Amino acid sequence: MSDAYLNYDALKLPAHIETVLLTGAGGFVGREVTKLMLNLYPALRIITTDIVEPPRFTDDARLRVVKADLGDDAQIESLFKGEKVGGLIALHGIMSGGSEANFELGYAVNVDSHVALLKAARRHADGILGRPMTYVFVSSLAVYGGDKCKPTDRVIPPDTPIIPGTSYGVEKTIVELYAYDYGRRGYLDTRSCRLPTVAIRTGAPSTAASSFISGLIREPLQGIRSVCPIAESEDDPMLDGMPVYLTRAKTVFRNIVWGLCMPAENFNFGKGDRSINIPGIRVTPRQILAALKEHAGEAGMQLVEYRKDPAVIAICETWAGDYDSSAEIKQGFVVDDVETGFSAAVQDFKEELAAEKK
Amino acid sequence: MSDAYLNYDALKLPAHIETVLLTGAGGFVGREVTKLMLNLYPALRIITTDIVEPPRFTDDARLRVVKADLGDDAQIESLFKGEKVGGLIALHGIMSGGSEANFELGYAVNVDSHVALLKAARRHADGILGRPMTYVFVSSLAVYGGDKCKPTDRVIPPDTPIIPGTSYGVEKTIVELYAYDYGRRGYLDTRSCRLPTVAIRTGAPSTAASSFISGLIREPLQGIRSVCPIAESEDDPMLDGMPVYLTRAKTVFRNIVWGLCMPAENFNFGKGDRSINIPGIRVTPRQILAALKEHAGEAGMQLVEYRKDPAVIAICETWAGDYDSSAEIKQGFVVDDVETGFSAAVQDFKEELAAEKK
Repeated sequence: MSDAYLNYDALKLPAHIETVLLTGAGGFVGREVTKLMLNLYPALRIITTDIVEPPRFTDDARLRVVKADLGDDAQIESLFKGEKVGGLIALHGIMSGGSEANFELGYAVNVDSHVALLKAARRHADGILGRPMTYVFVSSLAVYGGDKCKPTDRVIPPDTPIIPGTSYGVEKTIVELYAYDYGRRGYLDTRSCRLPTVAIRTGAPSTAASSFISGLIREPLQGIRSVCPIAESEDDPMLDGMPVYLTRAKTVFRNIVWGLCMPAENFNFGKGDRSINIPGIRVTPRQILAALKEHAGEAGMQLVEYRKDPAVIAICETWAGDYDSSAEIKQGFVVDDVETGFSAAVQDFKEELAAEKK
Repeated sequence: MSDAYLNYDALKLPAHIETVLLTGAGGFVGREVTKLMLNLYPALRIITTDIVEPPRFTDDARLRVVKADLGDDAQIESLFKGEKVGGLIALHGIMSGGSEANFELGYAVNVDSHVALLKAARRHADGILGRPMTYVFVSSLAVYGGDKCKPTDRVIPPDTPIIPGTSYGVEKTIVELYAYDYGRRGYLDTRSCRLPTVAIRTGAPSTAASSFISGLIREPLQGIRSVCPIAESEDDPMLDGMPVYLTRAKTVFRNIVWGLCMPAENFNFGKGDRSINIPGIRVTPRQILAALKEHAGEAGMQLVEYRKDPAVIAICETWAGDYDSSAEIKQGFVVDDVETGFSAAVQDFKEELAAEKK
């Protein structure tokens, strides 16, 4: 698969964005989006933050790294102090499994700290920037759920109510609503980008219920055992019956940056809506296992253990397996190829592994 | 119009509800719902609260009246102290016009104090009640908006995304999401009842954008001038082109009490949804003026002044004029008659005026 479709040339940063603040920078997506922006924009200054100090993978002076607890207003304020932040990517959060396990923590991190960040960004934009800040809230397709959003469904967004099936989805929906209203009122130029499952995530398994999707490839490719929590055996029909909606990691990094660059007028197809379904492709667990076999052979397949986890299945059952993303493609977001996209994602991961070993 | 359709006999209060807490009790809806419950349930104890002391319209010892600021956690706690509250009707709020005019106040009252109340109710249910409290959040059809919810549209709820067009609608949607998740997790037995425009509201005009609907009848019937803010003259086509979705006041009081009585299993038609569109009828401003002429004659009509208010029109344009409420009728909610419903509402109001004069 050629990477030309990623069309990095389209990613023109608007002039008011000289500095970007990115939260949740310690995670896989935050780290890679930071790297991509540092590469694409030679003049851009980036402030990264997380609850533990985010990685400083370069000695480039354009990168400022801050450890901060966004549950504390003073620590939020300190991120903006002395800066002129024109763009913000709000990416921090507790994942779906973690939110379901800890109600209070989920709301504190996934709602309260985001509302505090919106308020602080508005004050900064009013006081320092002199125009609305471009504000990307990184949301999730987990906002969808209910009768029309089962794994076997294809969602047509204008005909589909948002009925999240998990606390994680509820929390994301609430912050989208805040972000939308800040945008509608002109306080911030907000965009909520709903991520499909990102594959392949590097690093350790996360508390996302979808973590096993990456894990089915990531661990066996490194000779480590992995659990498939939605099937009892290789013959389980659930491997066909529970497709997931995925994006290649490279594609989602590009699309998040486009979320920051995209002119506000690209929203015009849907009055009153500032939420974007980042496009993905429908992939069944069976297809994932086929890719594992292709890249790691029978030895890789032997490392997969089939053990149903009702908690993971319950969460996955509230997610639709496919979405119509034609509106988002018109807005300038790009999509993986249905046939080759997941294979490209596995290939990316193999290259990363090889690079790490050097 | 016979009142038999109101079917008060169906309103059986579940045994765990010996005491009901009702917030926003100083307003028209709160006051009348309180009266109705005191009448229907001889053994029920009711605690009413509002930011100014709610009316004590009876010396019945079953009614406890408390002035409280729900922006203050200690004052919320004091409402529950020494009580065993089995049901709660959360009705307090800033209306649509007020929320649009004051962003911070709208969110503080319409979101933050409701979230604090949900938390306190959960603690009370866990600690004192020993089972989930029945919790009615009074929401609004203003949660709907966007391309499929213009005044000339008829909304089919399962096919219609929630895209509120106002801060008021956003705030209501956010609290519905919290209430839904408290219900889904079994912390409270929540029901969000979305009200159509209630006609005729007695008392002074409110900051609701829809306030003029009641005002077109209420003021002229008392010999007072009234402004129609959506038309330039009696000939303006907007009088036909901007229908509103109304409920007779008597009907909505009954339906709110049913929201408290309704068995949780009545929700089963829509997985994962705890929001109810309280049924109403589609009425055009022209029909309202015809009812005014019928009840107050040409003299009443002369008291209406036509003066377009762009702020009111902008809000009204985000509301759908009609809704399919067949699912809610299956749940046990009742609906006004399309032909006679609004006339009955005017008749109710005339009787109230006459009673006040005695």
